[in-house]
Amino acid sequence: MRLRLALYGCRRVAAPADNVVVIGKKSVPDYVLEVILKFNEGIDEVVIKGRGQMISKAVDVYNALKSKLGDSLQLVSVNIDSDNIGGRLVSYIEIRVRRTI
Amino acid sequence: MRLRLALYGCRRVAAPADNVVVIGKKSVPDYVLEVILKFNEGIDEVVIKGRGQMISKAVDVYNALKSKLGDSLQLVSVNIDSDNIGGRLVSYIEIRVRRTI
Repeated sequence: MRLRLALYGCRRVAAPADNVVVIGKKSVPDYVLEVILKFNEGIDEVVIKGRGQMISKAVDVYNALKSKLGDSLQLVSVNIDSDNIGGRLVSYIEIRVRRTI
Repeated sequence: MRLRLALYGCRRVAAPADNVVVIGKKSVPDYVLEVILKFNEGIDEVVIKGRGQMISKAVDVYNALKSKLGDSLQLVSVNIDSDNIGGRLVSYIEIRVRRTI
């Protein structure tokens, strides 16, 4: 019985796709580097995703990238919405950026 | 001399336009009400603006509005950028919403 509960109990959290940088507790420069490394791997469009309080940091990461990459960075889209996590609505932002050069 | 200094010293912070709700320390429901009251005043497009840490709350206000107004609320645009305030880049978000019914 406990095993079954354990199986049902643990929520499978899907690993983020390769082109998604999920903002957490690291510093803004850490995430800027992470996006640039994805560009260097040949991924042309990267999504910067922040939930809850990390939404502000996701926008900081975008602005820091823009100040570094200038015109070679293009803002493709900004999506805001919410997920139902454990019965609570948690806001999120998805900032899709593309490398143009 | 002091008067002149006083004039130059104090930074004129432009009052937000009528259709802009600037997110500050009040609660999310307070800002949801503020947007709805602007719709009731006949303002069809309202901009929810959040700077720095208030960016996350601005997205919360949008999601709370959406859960209340459903299809009668349309997301027109989401703009993210930064202002240079006192020599420091401060991120901001502008969420433009329109009442459709």
